[in-house]
Amino acid sequence: MVVPIPEGGVQVELVCGLLLWFGATCQGGPGPAQRDALMREEASRQIGGRLALTAAEQRLDARLHQLKEREMAAPSFPPAVHFFKAKLLIQRSPIFGLLQKMPKGGALHIHSSTLVSVDWLVKNVTYRPRCYICFTWDRSIRFLFSDRQPFPRWDCFHWQLLETLRAKMGDATDFDKSLIRNLTLFTEDPDAAYPSQDIVWEKFEKAFIVASGLITHAPVLRDYIYQGLEELYQDNIMYLELRSGLSRTYELDGSIHDKVWSLKTFQEVAQRFVGDHPDFLGARVIITVHRALSVADVKAAVKEAMQMQRDFPHVVAGFDLVGREDSGRTLWYFKEALLLPADMGRVLPYFFHAGETDEEGTDVDENILDALLFNTTRIGHGYALAHHPLAKELSRKGNVAVELCPISNQVLKLVSDLRNHPAAVLMSEGHPMVISSDDPSLFGTTGLSYDFYQAFVGIGGLKANLATLKELALNSIRYSSLPPPLKQTGLAMWQKKWDTFISAGFKELNQKGTRLI
Amino acid sequence: MVVPIPEGGVQVELVCGLLLWFGATCQGGPGPAQRDALMREEASRQIGGRLALTAAEQRLDARLHQLKEREMAAPSFPPAVHFFKAKLLIQRSPIFGLLQKMPKGGALHIHSSTLVSVDWLVKNVTYRPRCYICFTWDRSIRFLFSDRQPFPRWDCFHWQLLETLRAKMGDATDFDKSLIRNLTLFTEDPDAAYPSQDIVWEKFEKAFIVASGLITHAPVLRDYIYQGLEELYQDNIMYLELRSGLSRTYELDGSIHDKVWSLKTFQEVAQRFVGDHPDFLGARVIITVHRALSVADVKAAVKEAMQMQRDFPHVVAGFDLVGREDSGRTLWYFKEALLLPADMGRVLPYFFHAGETDEEGTDVDENILDALLFNTTRIGHGYALAHHPLAKELSRKGNVAVELCPISNQVLKLVSDLRNHPAAVLMSEGHPMVISSDDPSLFGTTGLSYDFYQAFVGIGGLKANLATLKELALNSIRYSSLPPPLKQTGLAMWQKKWDTFISAGFKELNQKGTRLI
Repeated sequence: MVVPIPEGGVQVELVCGLLLWFGATCQGGPGPAQRDALMREEASRQIGGRLALTAAEQRLDARLHQLKEREMAAPSFPPAVHFFKAKLLIQRSPIFGLLQKMPKGGALHIHSSTLVSVDWLVKNVTYRPRCYICFTWDRSIRFLFSDRQPFPRWDCFHWQLLETLRAKMGDATDFDKSLIRNLTLFTEDPDAAYPSQDIVWEKFEKAFIVASGLITHAPVLRDYIYQGLEELYQDNIMYLELRSGLSRTYELDGSIHDKVWSLKTFQEVAQRFVGDHPDFLGARVIITVHRALSVADVKAAVKEAMQMQRDFPHVVAGFDLVGREDSGRTLWYFKEALLLPADMGRVLPYFFHAGETDEEGTDVDENILDALLFNTTRIGHGYALAHHPLAKELSRKGNVAVELCPISNQVLKLVSDLRNHPAAVLMSEGHPMVISSDDPSLFGTTGLSYDFYQAFVGIGGLKANLATLKELALNSIRYSSLPPPLKQTGLAMWQKKWDTFISAGFKELNQKGTRLI
Repeated sequence: MVVPIPEGGVQVELVCGLLLWFGATCQGGPGPAQRDALMREEASRQIGGRLALTAAEQRLDARLHQLKEREMAAPSFPPAVHFFKAKLLIQRSPIFGLLQKMPKGGALHIHSSTLVSVDWLVKNVTYRPRCYICFTWDRSIRFLFSDRQPFPRWDCFHWQLLETLRAKMGDATDFDKSLIRNLTLFTEDPDAAYPSQDIVWEKFEKAFIVASGLITHAPVLRDYIYQGLEELYQDNIMYLELRSGLSRTYELDGSIHDKVWSLKTFQEVAQRFVGDHPDFLGARVIITVHRALSVADVKAAVKEAMQMQRDFPHVVAGFDLVGREDSGRTLWYFKEALLLPADMGRVLPYFFHAGETDEEGTDVDENILDALLFNTTRIGHGYALAHHPLAKELSRKGNVAVELCPISNQVLKLVSDLRNHPAAVLMSEGHPMVISSDDPSLFGTTGLSYDFYQAFVGIGGLKANLATLKELALNSIRYSSLPPPLKQTGLAMWQKKWDTFISAGFKELNQKGTRLI
């Protein structure tokens, strides 16, 4: 074999070419200055990479960097293990403490049935009078509030008054724990409990049904929404876009309220909450239907959503399809329904779940491009987006933000070590993105701080910094469904909170030395 | 809260805008034709996306697609589980059968100490006369060929003649199995055996040391190289670039040959192998040193490599640093050494390992940009590349191919489910890439078929097709260190093999109906 090797010059020329390409000089090979220029150029592309930080922000950022280095060097790195095992570690993290205090803007991807912590549901709601419970054949439970002994239903024959049953049980704490287990996915050994996506999704959907009996009781719904907003507010969140199917609700006597009642109730409660908390911006609803429905049903739902948006323009943000993408119907399957607004010359903003899958190249995977084709305003999850170069380009150019829900993706078994979450690519490129929590009650979180932690420490790695956090928070207002004037109001409100946060963090740092905040 | 919603028109305009952007017409919303245009545009960007397939190739491709759909729907998807558990599943896959028969071009990233299957080392080499064994304090073993009882060494006191010891053991099969366990990472319960990266890397580096006593025996080395080429040839590989530290070798009487002897031996054996197998293109060496060395040592190694490349231009391809990146020194640390050739106006092509890490944003992670800054010809692993937008752009523009070794990355615990391997991003974007096996003997593979399977079925997903495979194979010649005329020779040789492969696969398909090949 004859392999002539070119002699001399080539290597130097190429190195120089690379440097000259970046406007650097080229003498004696790449020096620290040229290298720094490359590193800076690359860092500038990530989320927050083009934000200039104030002196106070820079000092806080430097401290954050130190803390992150320490956390990455520890033997157990929380984002690398299942959240159910990492939760206690995260709670001990000073970075997490900071994130809790940080004004995070809006929560744009949360489902209504999983908005409020399970503790509140069990400790508050199930202790209310006239709450009945029933055990199903598949060892699940149902709840129902009723002023008389409920009739047997197809899924549940024997209803017992919860108060009586709880009194019969020796240990109410244990009993309540068993109720909690039915309402959340949280468990100490998630790998054993959920060996596959199918199994975790089955439990996931069961938990939704369990909660529904409590939440759809009309008086509970009112308190539930308020409590949900309160929990977000406690986590320094100032705005919510809630995905909700607007279930019909029931009264003690079995009478039923329609969807419009739920929508009005949501609006009233949100207004009351804003009245009680003037630094909370508000809340809107993204109306959802399940992707298991027929085209005709989804058509009807789209029409209904258009009508509700016309009637309640301040509260209805738009429309989405929910349910597991992998086992459900694709967006393209519903094209006739989804094109209705365009066909009628009307507007119904879409906020589609798309690409919450690891089945690369399948029909389900194509939801990503179809969501864009149907002009979605944001992409729910977009787990598969990084593998779709064209869709990535389109969503970037169109300012279509991805709603990243890291803990959800891990618990629902798309990824085990969050450092491998494909959103790392999107973060490094500065793709439009917001952070959300999807189903906080099911995953044992409240607010967004846990998901921010995973995105910031795990997915973003050491290079994600305070500017990344700032941009992610800003994005949640910027990419919300709010009209421009309200976005301005929101941004101003947020900036005030942010300034307070920075100066408090900064002061604390100066006072306590090593403690962060 | 006041949220005015714009009325009418906007949605239609945006959908149309998206379509017009792609030169499609826009009447009545996106239709199947427009959608297909988007899908085709996206598909064209992946590896192989711009290759036109012949009719015969298209028919084989259609069959491959069916088979892949079936494999993805099966309850246990091999790329999603640890390779040590998936290996038997993969062996039963008809896609794997096809990949074994496919001419795969060159293997560009294999380390010399792990080139040959452990079975051959134990069944052949350890049965040779005058092979001594010694058990170390940390329950590892050492081998040594010697014409007399070897002296005790710092790591090993009591040497026994292997032949005698084996005879003493009742069951030679069991004994040989225990030898095998010392030479490979393969085990039935990898999660229990290797709970962390640190532990798997410790075993990894131990296995290298165990093998060295066998391989560095001069007469063994000769057969070893031949056997290594034979195993690649059996897997339809026609070219090798072997990373080798060119260890000194020893004779029975303890006399030592220098590195040049190893290089000459490699050249002679490769020439003999090509003589015996005229459809094998040849083999070259990438000279390596360990990144644990000092700058001065690496300087000396760079100088030595330049000299050897000058003396053996047909066989020396270039230079690399090896050893675990996470715990070793960075490329930038060695800058003085690595800039030596450029400073001297000379050429030493680099083939740097870079970004074999999940420690995003750390100094180690910066090896990716530094490898490019030092003008690397290819990037070994580049696991972190997808998270480096600038480096990705530079390597794409500079035709710097990534050497993807999926099984290695999984076994060394960078990723568990290969669908989450960041190279999925690179594949979807058509990034310059070749597939290799890194350390086949340690992972229990031979050839490249297993790694091709993981890249094709797991990382590439359903959308990776026969054109992807074709381009990956072509890339291995295109991005090799061969000078242009030899690349042409190689490409012509490969094309002939490919045509035979396609027509054989095609015929078989016609004859046997459902069986692929």
